[in-house]
Amino acid sequence: MSGDKGDVRPLGIFDSGMGGLTVMRAVRRALPQERIIYLGDTARLPYGTKSADTVTRYALQAAEHLVARDVKAILVACNTASANALPALARAFDPLPIIGVVEPGAEAAVAATRSGNIAVIATEGTVRGGAYRAAIHARMPYAKVTEIACPLFVALAEEGLTQGEIVRLVASRYLDPVFGAGDARPDTLVLGCTHFPVLAEAIQQAAGKDVTLVDSAETAAADLARVLAARGLLSKGPAESPQFLATDAAARFARIGQLFLFAPINEDQVTLVDLSA
Amino acid sequence: MSGDKGDVRPLGIFDSGMGGLTVMRAVRRALPQERIIYLGDTARLPYGTKSADTVTRYALQAAEHLVARDVKAILVACNTASANALPALARAFDPLPIIGVVEPGAEAAVAATRSGNIAVIATEGTVRGGAYRAAIHARMPYAKVTEIACPLFVALAEEGLTQGEIVRLVASRYLDPVFGAGDARPDTLVLGCTHFPVLAEAIQQAAGKDVTLVDSAETAAADLARVLAARGLLSKGPAESPQFLATDAAARFARIGQLFLFAPINEDQVTLVDLSA
Repeated sequence: MSGDKGDVRPLGIFDSGMGGLTVMRAVRRALPQERIIYLGDTARLPYGTKSADTVTRYALQAAEHLVARDVKAILVACNTASANALPALARAFDPLPIIGVVEPGAEAAVAATRSGNIAVIATEGTVRGGAYRAAIHARMPYAKVTEIACPLFVALAEEGLTQGEIVRLVASRYLDPVFGAGDARPDTLVLGCTHFPVLAEAIQQAAGKDVTLVDSAETAAADLARVLAARGLLSKGPAESPQFLATDAAARFARIGQLFLFAPINEDQVTLVDLSA
Repeated sequence: MSGDKGDVRPLGIFDSGMGGLTVMRAVRRALPQERIIYLGDTARLPYGTKSADTVTRYALQAAEHLVARDVKAILVACNTASANALPALARAFDPLPIIGVVEPGAEAAVAATRSGNIAVIATEGTVRGGAYRAAIHARMPYAKVTEIACPLFVALAEEGLTQGEIVRLVASRYLDPVFGAGDARPDTLVLGCTHFPVLAEAIQQAAGKDVTLVDSAETAAADLARVLAARGLLSKGPAESPQFLATDAAARFARIGQLFLFAPINEDQVTLVDLSA
């Protein structure tokens, strides 16, 4: 760390798999001079169907691994882990800055809504915890919040199946019961899973053109930039290539990861690590 | 163990999650007098997207846990684990009988085909290993084997979405390239994932009425019965209720499990266990 270069230690970003790369993309735009270590816990994905205790245990192990690599801050780029594990992570690694995606998503939703009627689509694990509902109500106590678990969206996104009739029908299946309701329709829809931005077009179509889609990636990246600046942790560059870590199946990480990063990833850029060791 | 009652030790069945309950159902029909312990590794499901090394490690831990509960035989009711981990399991627990679902599935396919043109639908992890291809060729060297990875079927089955337009379109997406081929069409289709039998109707429709669907559950149960009889390990009853173990999310195990078992499961019948301890 030198005065000239700022704090050149890397940023750690982790997710259960590859979906968090949509958040990494936003971080690279917001903080192009920062070095990033991205960790995908692909040996145990998905987190979205697992209990709060298990998700918390996995998240603590992931953060521990990043801390051992001397990261200066951690972005939890997974809604399920953010919704279930953020307090435990903050306690375990205090004073390291640890930022989740749920609070930034709630902030963006509250900024976007005019009617106070907000829908959130997410995994089962995120919906179960009610973290989005709590985070929105903390900012807007009278808001009406409808949470919808959409597990098939995760499978579609991972298969790269982001357009066409199947996606349209699945989106209708999840969204019609809430957005077909006339006057009671939400005006804002939070994409509460990092996999979902790649399905944004189909989701927008099913929800209706007048509904504002909110993606926590941009807001989370802005939050991270603000925290780094406030604590004097910004790097002045130069930019370095990101490093990808995965707990399993490097080839699959690279192949599917590029769908979410919107940039090529080579298998040999991905290092396998063991979090249980 | 008494001469009168036969060998009353339980049978162990394990799977990454709930799909193996389709196999347990066949075992209960074939061996109604046996006590069954079913273990679903729900904290780490699915296995189908993970590497051979990781699947093998998880399978060894699951089998270790069942052995500690004094099982007299183990049925690996997961195609991905059978395809990747069976040799390692057999070595580790010799002489305990350990039976997988791939060999019985291959046997059933070879018995069913007339043309020798066989298709197998499975997870990515099963297709990658080529275990079905090898097991079919060992019995029928000239067979033409086409393996198709169908990851969305797993998500659809777990959501209980087994009929209707979405399922029909997904089945067409996977099967039309192989079964739309005129003279070169396979006459036999192996359901190479324990999740798939609940989608059999849609799969049959997409493949064509003239195609024979093969499900390894029945053949695997018959194999198990034969091995138990040969080694003098059969119980003479009386039947006892099965015991369900899961590594995470007992409520979800019970809710989704009954889709595969075709019988009710109460959350309080499911005991949480930790395989990594």
